[in-house]
Amino acid sequence: MNYAMIRYILACVMGFEAIFLTLPCLVAIIYQEQAGWAFFFTLLLCGFFWFLGTRKKPKNTVFFAREGFVAVALSWILLSIMGAIPFLLSGEIPDFIDAFFEAVSGFTTTGASVLEDVSTLSYTSIFWRSFTLWIGGMGVLVFMVAILPLSGSYNILLMKAESPGPSVGKFVPRIKTTAKLLYGIYFCLTVIQVFLLLLGDMPLFDALIISFGTAGTGGFGATTNSLEGYSMYIQSVTIVFMILFGINFNVYYLLLVKKWKQAIRCEEMRYYFMIIVFTIIVITMNIHSMFSSWLSAFHHAAFQVTSIITTTAYSTVDFDQWPAFSKELLIVLMFIGSCAGSTGGGIKVSRFAIIVKTFFKEMYQIIHPKGVKIIRFEGKKVEHNVLRSINTYFAGYILVFVSSIVMIGLNDFDLITNFTAVIAALNNIGAGLELVGPTGNFGDFSVLSKFVLSFDMLAGRLELFPMLLLFVPSTWKK
Amino acid sequence: MNYAMIRYILACVMGFEAIFLTLPCLVAIIYQEQAGWAFFFTLLLCGFFWFLGTRKKPKNTVFFAREGFVAVALSWILLSIMGAIPFLLSGEIPDFIDAFFEAVSGFTTTGASVLEDVSTLSYTSIFWRSFTLWIGGMGVLVFMVAILPLSGSYNILLMKAESPGPSVGKFVPRIKTTAKLLYGIYFCLTVIQVFLLLLGDMPLFDALIISFGTAGTGGFGATTNSLEGYSMYIQSVTIVFMILFGINFNVYYLLLVKKWKQAIRCEEMRYYFMIIVFTIIVITMNIHSMFSSWLSAFHHAAFQVTSIITTTAYSTVDFDQWPAFSKELLIVLMFIGSCAGSTGGGIKVSRFAIIVKTFFKEMYQIIHPKGVKIIRFEGKKVEHNVLRSINTYFAGYILVFVSSIVMIGLNDFDLITNFTAVIAALNNIGAGLELVGPTGNFGDFSVLSKFVLSFDMLAGRLELFPMLLLFVPSTWKK
Repeated sequence: MNYAMIRYILACVMGFEAIFLTLPCLVAIIYQEQAGWAFFFTLLLCGFFWFLGTRKKPKNTVFFAREGFVAVALSWILLSIMGAIPFLLSGEIPDFIDAFFEAVSGFTTTGASVLEDVSTLSYTSIFWRSFTLWIGGMGVLVFMVAILPLSGSYNILLMKAESPGPSVGKFVPRIKTTAKLLYGIYFCLTVIQVFLLLLGDMPLFDALIISFGTAGTGGFGATTNSLEGYSMYIQSVTIVFMILFGINFNVYYLLLVKKWKQAIRCEEMRYYFMIIVFTIIVITMNIHSMFSSWLSAFHHAAFQVTSIITTTAYSTVDFDQWPAFSKELLIVLMFIGSCAGSTGGGIKVSRFAIIVKTFFKEMYQIIHPKGVKIIRFEGKKVEHNVLRSINTYFAGYILVFVSSIVMIGLNDFDLITNFTAVIAALNNIGAGLELVGPTGNFGDFSVLSKFVLSFDMLAGRLELFPMLLLFVPSTWKK
Repeated sequence: MNYAMIRYILACVMGFEAIFLTLPCLVAIIYQEQAGWAFFFTLLLCGFFWFLGTRKKPKNTVFFAREGFVAVALSWILLSIMGAIPFLLSGEIPDFIDAFFEAVSGFTTTGASVLEDVSTLSYTSIFWRSFTLWIGGMGVLVFMVAILPLSGSYNILLMKAESPGPSVGKFVPRIKTTAKLLYGIYFCLTVIQVFLLLLGDMPLFDALIISFGTAGTGGFGATTNSLEGYSMYIQSVTIVFMILFGINFNVYYLLLVKKWKQAIRCEEMRYYFMIIVFTIIVITMNIHSMFSSWLSAFHHAAFQVTSIITTTAYSTVDFDQWPAFSKELLIVLMFIGSCAGSTGGGIKVSRFAIIVKTFFKEMYQIIHPKGVKIIRFEGKKVEHNVLRSINTYFAGYILVFVSSIVMIGLNDFDLITNFTAVIAALNNIGAGLELVGPTGNFGDFSVLSKFVLSFDMLAGRLELFPMLLLFVPSTWKK
C-alpha cells in the first residue's frame, strides 16, 4: 500500500471540499444566517488539511487497483465526516452520528434523512445537504481528475473505483477529457432543469434544491413534503429530468458528437425505458381507483416509478398507502436501479440484462447441448471477466444486504421497515416503506443501525469493493 | 423430443403411484373409513394408465438431458394431479386447486397446507399427504431407477434432474446401486425415528406421520398444532432427525463403508453445523426473556432453527411472535436451506459456500493482481462449469422469485405474507410469517396465487430447470 499517494489524494479531496464549501457560505451571506460561520470554519479546516497534505509530493507514485479502491473509500468517508461538521457546529443536527448519516446520505446521493422536519434547518444547511447530492452524483474524484493537472495510471484507477456500473465508460482515450466531458454534460443538464423550473414560477432557491436532488438522483427536498406541494408542471419537469439523469451518460456523449444512431441503439437505455413504461402502465391500472382521474393516477404512477427506478425517491403522494402489488413492483425497481454510468444507484439495468441473458443462454444450452451461443450486450460479446465481476458483485451484494438486515433487526422495528431501510441505503434511494416510507425518516434507528446504514450507503455508491476492502487486513500491508 | 420415451416413463411413474396408494387403502381398512374408496379408485386409475402406457416399449431410446428434465417435470405434475384426486373424490378437499396445491405441497416436501383444521381430514387422507412427503423426499424417479430393470443413459439423466444440489452424488459407478443405497439409508433412518418416537409413548399413527414429515423435511403434522402438544422428548428426537435428514446422504454412504475420516471431513456438513449452532445461540439470547428458563428458550430456538434450515417447518411455538432479529435470521435460514443431496430444500449450503468463496477469491485478486488462487470445495477444485451452473441457478432463482412475488401481490395481502409465502413455496419450507405463519395456512390465496405457488414448489423441489424448460417452445420440437 502506497500510503504517501493516498495521503496526497485525500489532501487534494480536502482542497476540493473547501472549494465546495464556499457556496453554502455565499448562501449564508445572502440569507444573513449565523449558520454560515460553521461552514466557514469547516472550510478553513479543510483548507488546512489540504495545505498540510500537499506540501510534499509523494516520490513513489506506484499505484495499483488496491490503492485506487482504498483512496476512493477513504476519500468518501473523509468527505462525509467533514461534511457533517457544519451541521454539528451550527447545532442544527446536534448528534454526531445523525450529522454523519445526513452527510453520507448526501454525498452518496441517497437522500435518506434523520430529520423529522426539514424546515428546522437554516437555508444554508438545506443548500449544503442538497449540494452534496450534486457533488456525489458525478463523483469527487472524477471532478479531481478533470481539474487537477495530474497524470498517471491512477487517474483511470480512481475513476474506475468511483464510477457506477460493470465497466467504466471511456468516451475518449484521454481519461482527463472524459472526466471533463462528464462534468460538462452534468452541469448543463442541471442548468437546463433549473431554468425550466424557474419558468414554472418556482423560487430560485427551491429550483436549485430540486435540481440538485434530481441531478444527483438523491431526493432531498426543500420542504418535508418532498414534491407534494408543487404544481403538476414542476412535477412533470422533474419526471423528465429524473429519467434523463438515470440514463448512461455515454448516450449524451454520443449525441454531442452527433452519433445519433449509436445513441438511440444503446441497449441498456432501451431496457430502462421498457421497464419504466411497463411499470407505469401496470401501476396506473392498479391504483387508478385511488385517484380522481386516470390522468392523475398516471401522473403519480409515472412520478413514483421514475423516482424509484432512478433511486431519487422524491414523492408526490404517500405510495406506502398503495396496494401490495404496486408496492412490490416499486421494491423490484429499487433493486434494479438506473443505467450504469448515470448518477443513479441500484444494481443497474445492465447487470440485470446480462444476468438474464446468461440465464437464457444456459436454457438454450440444455436444449441444444451442441449449439454455441454467445452473449452479446451493446453489440459486443460479453467477456468472461465481465460476467465474473457481475457474479461477484451479486455475491457481495447479498452478503452485505443480509448482514445489514440482521444487524438492523436488533432495533426490533417491523420487518418491512428493516428490509426497506437496507434497500433504501444500499441502493442509494433514500426512502422505503413503513417507518422509512415517504412520510417517515431514519431518525429513530439506533447508533449501530445508523453506522450500518451509512456503511451501506457508501458501499452502494462505490459499488461494494472499495468499502469492503477496508476490512481485509492484507489490504493494508505495505 | 422423444415423446415415446417420455410417455413410457410417465406410465411407469403411474404404476409406482398405484403401488404407493395401496398404503392409504390399508389405512382405510384399519380405520374403517369410507374415504378409502376414493383412494382405491385412484389406485385403479393409476394402474390403468400404467397398463395403457407400458404395453408398447419405445423403440427409439435416444435420450438427452432435455428429455430427462421434461420427463421429471411432467412426472411430478402428473403425480400431483393423481395424488389430488382422492382428496377431491372423498370430498375432504372439495376444490380442485386446493387439492392440487395440497398434493404438490406433499410431493415436493413443502408441507404448506390450504387447510385451516387438519382434524377435518380422515386418517386415510392425513396418512396419504404425509406419505407423499416421504415419497417426494428421496424422489420418485430415484425409486424407479432403483427398482425397475431398466438400464441406459437415461437413468443418470433422470436422477440428475430430480436430485437436489449442484452435482449428483454417485457413490458407486452403477447408478442403480447408488439409487438403491440412497433409498435403503432413507428407509432405515425413518424406521429408527419411528421406533424412537414410539419409545416416547407416541401412538404409531402419529409416529409414522411425524417421521414421514421429518424424513421428507416436509412438515405436515398429525394435528393442526404441528408439534406443539408433544413432549420435550419427542420434540428433541425430531430435532435430531431433522438435522440428520438435512445432511448430504454421501456422508451416510461413507459411514456405511466405514470411511469415517472422509465422512467427518465433509465440508458442506461442517458449514451446515456451524450455521445451525451459531443461529441457535444467537436466537436463544434474543428470545430468552420470552421463556421461563434458558433451557426452554434454547430448546425452542434449537427446534425452530433446525426445522427452518432443513425446510421442514414443524413448529413448537408461534415463532411469528419472536423479535424481528430472530425472525430475520430465520428468513435467512429459509434461503440457505439444507445440504445438497439431502431431502431438504432451499438454495443449499454448498451453493452459498461456493459463492462466498468466489467472492473472497475476487477480493484477494484485487489486492494481489498477480496472485493465483484456486477455489476448492470438498477438497477438490471447483470447476468452471459448476460455478457457471451455480450462477445460472441464482439468476433463475431471482427471476422466479421476483415474478412470483409480483403475481402474489395481486391478492393485496400484506407484504410479509406475500414475501414469505413465496419463500416458503420456492424453498419447499411450507411456513412463513403473518398469514402463512406457523398458525396460518395458504387457504385464502386466490386461484392464480395457488397455481403460482404450486409452480414454485415444483420449481424449488426440481431445482428450477425442469419446470422452466416446459415454457420454452423449442423444448417441444421433435
